[in-house]
Amino acid sequence: VDRPVLVLVPDDDGVAALAAVPGVRALRYDVDTLPTDEQRDAEVIVVGHLGIDRTTRGMAQLAKLQLVQTLNAGYDQWIGRIPPGARLANARGAHGRATAEWVVAVLLAHVRELHRFAASQAEARWSRGFTRTLADRRVAVLGAGDIGGHLRAMLTPFGADVQLVGRTARDGVIALPDFLAERAGYDVVVLVLPLTDATRGLADAGFLAGLREGAILVNAGRGPLVVTADLRAAAAAGRVTALLDVVDPEPLPDGDPVWTTPGITITPHVGGAVDGIWGRAWRVAAEQIAAYARGVPPPNLVDL
Amino acid sequence: VDRPVLVLVPDDDGVAALAAVPGVRALRYDVDTLPTDEQRDAEVIVVGHLGIDRTTRGMAQLAKLQLVQTLNAGYDQWIGRIPPGARLANARGAHGRATAEWVVAVLLAHVRELHRFAASQAEARWSRGFTRTLADRRVAVLGAGDIGGHLRAMLTPFGADVQLVGRTARDGVIALPDFLAERAGYDVVVLVLPLTDATRGLADAGFLAGLREGAILVNAGRGPLVVTADLRAAAAAGRVTALLDVVDPEPLPDGDPVWTTPGITITPHVGGAVDGIWGRAWRVAAEQIAAYARGVPPPNLVDL
Repeated sequence: VDRPVLVLVPDDDGVAALAAVPGVRALRYDVDTLPTDEQRDAEVIVVGHLGIDRTTRGMAQLAKLQLVQTLNAGYDQWIGRIPPGARLANARGAHGRATAEWVVAVLLAHVRELHRFAASQAEARWSRGFTRTLADRRVAVLGAGDIGGHLRAMLTPFGADVQLVGRTARDGVIALPDFLAERAGYDVVVLVLPLTDATRGLADAGFLAGLREGAILVNAGRGPLVVTADLRAAAAAGRVTALLDVVDPEPLPDGDPVWTTPGITITPHVGGAVDGIWGRAWRVAAEQIAAYARGVPPPNLVDL
Repeated sequence: VDRPVLVLVPDDDGVAALAAVPGVRALRYDVDTLPTDEQRDAEVIVVGHLGIDRTTRGMAQLAKLQLVQTLNAGYDQWIGRIPPGARLANARGAHGRATAEWVVAVLLAHVRELHRFAASQAEARWSRGFTRTLADRRVAVLGAGDIGGHLRAMLTPFGADVQLVGRTARDGVIALPDFLAERAGYDVVVLVLPLTDATRGLADAGFLAGLREGAILVNAGRGPLVVTADLRAAAAAGRVTALLDVVDPEPLPDGDPVWTTPGITITPHVGGAVDGIWGRAWRVAAEQIAAYARGVPPPNLVDL
């Protein structure tokens, strides 16, 4: 008989999520004692949010490790930390809709000026006025993966004209250089790219100078996609409005001047932080691990 | 030769919008002098927002009047004001998307707690936290017309389960009594009904008591669909959250206690007030008048 694949999980939710996966035995680990004798033969480890340094140290002692499975979508923090012979898979598919929902939420709140009407309510004063709308607006979404696909589906019914931008052109997706050449044609530019050497600092002074006057830049990817000082200058000059869920550095220090720069709205990296999200992430992780246990490559393997 | 249909319009936008409509001659009127001798043979009048009493007085002197065309979606204010022999048509199709956009904007801002994060930003403080989401939420939309159709299209990509509710059951639409019987099953109830004798005061104490604890009630229809005092009581008790673009009375007087009732968010009837909306309304009005001039019933005729 084949022995079950030993999978290390960081919490009891993981034990429960993997209970029904055939050919798998899940054991809970603690980053401080990883690996115990019972855990040394693990082929798979699921990593949580915290203790990345300590988890990396423990992982290095798992001689049979084949798969590191995360519960997140971003994975730049794992570059250089996966032991030789092992691969990384993320939880793509669990978080995209929540993050896309955040993008649409802040965009709509901005164009429909909900802050202005909240201020009128606080003054108990009826004060009408026209606002902008997403209808007939051109929106570029940089990042044609899970979040980008959700954004196209969500924004199109509002009458927005959505263009996905990816590393390579394909059906419904244009390549980044083509977007850059015509970026003045968009009212809204949404960044949902992964952070790589190619994307770090993409939105610098030159990028921002080429956007339409009054364009809205949304960052729901990673803070270092944007050169913070350059964005501050463009926003303070009134040339762009920025809606940011991620920022560089992060967390943004209390009292940092970015907080009070006119034209910049910040939320504290909560794009994916919605009720039920860890249940969704565990369902995706369980699917990846089930594929591994069947001898099939997990669909969410990431090339670091 | 047939003489062109004489159409009275309240502004130069109307003259421009009708310039290309075959068989029509558009004349601008002023409510204070309506009708001048030149205007007495008008068969169609387009009515604007203001001066409804004076417009009604002038209309009564148009002996050949057949069609009163509005630029709005709501029409309850015209009940009893259309001269015998004439019909009313509204601008259905021009406003639905903007009003539906407002509904999604306030719903998303509420569930994603943008007010909380704005307060954190005002304090220059990074303060994470989980929020709710529209995913997997059950949404009932009372009103299965133009706005309701847009809402179903807009909300479905967020993973919300949207049920339209109309006067009569049909494909994809349940009847109001069936909704009322199962209303505790919905997380969000959106009112986009016209105001009629049958809908006035629909959301009273009994209606509200049957909603799920913590339900969100959105009113983007007409203020008197809701019994304001009953809603205040339910909101103040924490049983429902209300997101209102319309209210009874309207405008809500400065300083009215509804402004400060916990759990009630108010915007000043701006659901349809977006840039470009009058251009869209004139395009719809021109289509109605073109149909009339061809001898075809305008598609937007309203039964008062």
